[in-house]
Amino acid sequence: MIRVEEAIAIVEANSTKMPVKQISVSKALGYVLAEKVISPINMPPFRQSAMDGYAFKHSIRHQYDIVGVSQAGDHSNIKLKTTEAIRIFTGAFVPDNADTVVMQEHVMANKESILIAAMPEKNTNVRPKGEQIAKGEVVFEANTLITPAAIGFLASLGIMTIAVYKKPKSAILVTGNELVKPGQKLKKGKIFESNSVMLQAGLQTFGLEKTKVYRVKDNLKATKKALESILNKFDIVLISGGISVGDYDFVKEALLQNDVKELFYKINQKPGKPMFFGSKNETLVFALPGNPASSLTNFYIYVAPAIKNKMGFAEIHKPKLVRKLNADIQNTTGKTLFLKAKYDETNVTVLDGQSSAMLNTFAVANSLLIVPQEIEEYKKDELVTLLPID
Amino acid sequence: MIRVEEAIAIVEANSTKMPVKQISVSKALGYVLAEKVISPINMPPFRQSAMDGYAFKHSIRHQYDIVGVSQAGDHSNIKLKTTEAIRIFTGAFVPDNADTVVMQEHVMANKESILIAAMPEKNTNVRPKGEQIAKGEVVFEANTLITPAAIGFLASLGIMTIAVYKKPKSAILVTGNELVKPGQKLKKGKIFESNSVMLQAGLQTFGLEKTKVYRVKDNLKATKKALESILNKFDIVLISGGISVGDYDFVKEALLQNDVKELFYKINQKPGKPMFFGSKNETLVFALPGNPASSLTNFYIYVAPAIKNKMGFAEIHKPKLVRKLNADIQNTTGKTLFLKAKYDETNVTVLDGQSSAMLNTFAVANSLLIVPQEIEEYKKDELVTLLPID
Repeated sequence: MIRVEEAIAIVEANSTKMPVKQISVSKALGYVLAEKVISPINMPPFRQSAMDGYAFKHSIRHQYDIVGVSQAGDHSNIKLKTTEAIRIFTGAFVPDNADTVVMQEHVMANKESILIAAMPEKNTNVRPKGEQIAKGEVVFEANTLITPAAIGFLASLGIMTIAVYKKPKSAILVTGNELVKPGQKLKKGKIFESNSVMLQAGLQTFGLEKTKVYRVKDNLKATKKALESILNKFDIVLISGGISVGDYDFVKEALLQNDVKELFYKINQKPGKPMFFGSKNETLVFALPGNPASSLTNFYIYVAPAIKNKMGFAEIHKPKLVRKLNADIQNTTGKTLFLKAKYDETNVTVLDGQSSAMLNTFAVANSLLIVPQEIEEYKKDELVTLLPID
Repeated sequence: MIRVEEAIAIVEANSTKMPVKQISVSKALGYVLAEKVISPINMPPFRQSAMDGYAFKHSIRHQYDIVGVSQAGDHSNIKLKTTEAIRIFTGAFVPDNADTVVMQEHVMANKESILIAAMPEKNTNVRPKGEQIAKGEVVFEANTLITPAAIGFLASLGIMTIAVYKKPKSAILVTGNELVKPGQKLKKGKIFESNSVMLQAGLQTFGLEKTKVYRVKDNLKATKKALESILNKFDIVLISGGISVGDYDFVKEALLQNDVKELFYKINQKPGKPMFFGSKNETLVFALPGNPASSLTNFYIYVAPAIKNKMGFAEIHKPKLVRKLNADIQNTTGKTLFLKAKYDETNVTVLDGQSSAMLNTFAVANSLLIVPQEIEEYKKDELVTLLPID
């Protein structure tokens, strides 16, 4: 049985990056850059007005004749005399021999001429060519997450495709003779199988949309056979159930017989202790506990960072939060606890219903409060560490 | 010109909820419940063992004969004598006349009998029927966001479909003669059009996947005509550009001629001042500034909460964060500033490059630091308020 910190480190060390693919910028939200991006142009591509106003060559004069107009999209390189100005709009081309734009609010104007009431300094309101980025400069380094702003910036440079890490293909293998599919009749002794849709949704939060679900009977032969084909087809395999110490748990055996390398089994934590983590080639296998709340806890603690690592994220762990505790917590287990909790701007409350079977608490929680295995007690008003899950 | 706080309140007051639809639980991630959900069953549906161990009727005896087994999925209601126990596994049915389960680790066992070394109290390790939720109880109230945990819980109750608010259908109308589509040749005076893909990605973060993009020439007639058909087809219409004070801006006129009710125009903020917000029937119209960074700022401040309100979210604003400022900030504008910033666990740094044209800063920011219009200065180490955008 290993410590939580060790288990997290082992997952991180073994989740290798996915292969690289080219993707259209417009479809890249949520992907991570596999290579740095270089700007193909200067941005802005020309000297641009930053205001609606008048462009002129700066001098001691206050009065100028209006001899033309430059609106956004124009490119008439009007040759201005020192006594002349042009009407100009935000984003429009500034003629080569103008150097300054005065805001229209600082001018008295008629159709033919302007009188500048408040003279700006030379070069005011002119965005230099390449001010934002010059041709050949780095737009984004590798491992940058593609956000709406990043998409906008790439598009503004005319970049159509980028190199990103592929998203892992994922499968879920469900075991358990006690399980009945929702929608079917619930016979005595059975429960509805809910982990597969829950884990599918968890994977979906990372944009892994097409997770395949497989169901097998609770026996070694069926499980071994199902794993044979699954292990070669997917990058991440989640197995739900069949991994605790009970006599009827044989998932670990089926994995080992399929040459899955055991990287750890059982973690000194509550809930979520009976978990197997292994790999075969580049495929990661997480055999998660069957209890829904344990399963989801370990999804957030171990599976989520592994996905982010495979997808190329620079930072695979969510930043932890520190909050003031609303009531004492005891930890008599000697294990690291992950408690479903709800935090606000300053405080955190541990929710009722921490049983590993109870998902309803999870549904209203926004965080897991971490009580490390050495800590026997946290007192009210102590500062504690949370992993946000919202 | 109105205050930011007023503008936010007006958006909130006018973004009415979407119609309701039935959706499969497995496809409901990110939707919001329109009606409360009632549990159709007890959960657990029967008395369940919480451990791998032995079930028996609690007494002063320590030795019991093993007369059967109950594994998960079984429902053999074995009648136990007071001298008898059965092998039982986590989640399995507990026979009616057993009341206690002893963990296997607390027992010495051979094939025929057990000797309990550490006697648990009566009722230990037996999950009562309906412990998690009873038939007829409320599973979730209306306006609950469907998370992976919520999906798991609903599925565990055998619930297949739920009533949620539809997601708004959205369109983007792009104006601007200076704009060239990425991939085309960048002629002199032109810039690449990037706001549409940026705003599409912003909408996609709320699961609005199929945003339609329309492009029109910079004139009243074309804009008016395009709006005629768009306004009747979509719930949220974003217009990019054509809304500032320049002579060539006519979007507002086209909106008013299409019977869009003006709810506000221009907000006392920087960036993002020239914005029009209006409505026609239930359709919301946001005419956003053409400058990319202004456009995205107003997307986060105004459009995002409107989407969440239409989708039925209980809380439409992200919780604000408070952090310690790393350097002085001046505000000589008399406007509310939204500064691209990066925060960590304790501090916040305002990023270089706050110009309304600059998206590169936005791509590395994780928050907008809010400087209210009355504040002329924040000093280093002061606590300031942030809107997270990650």
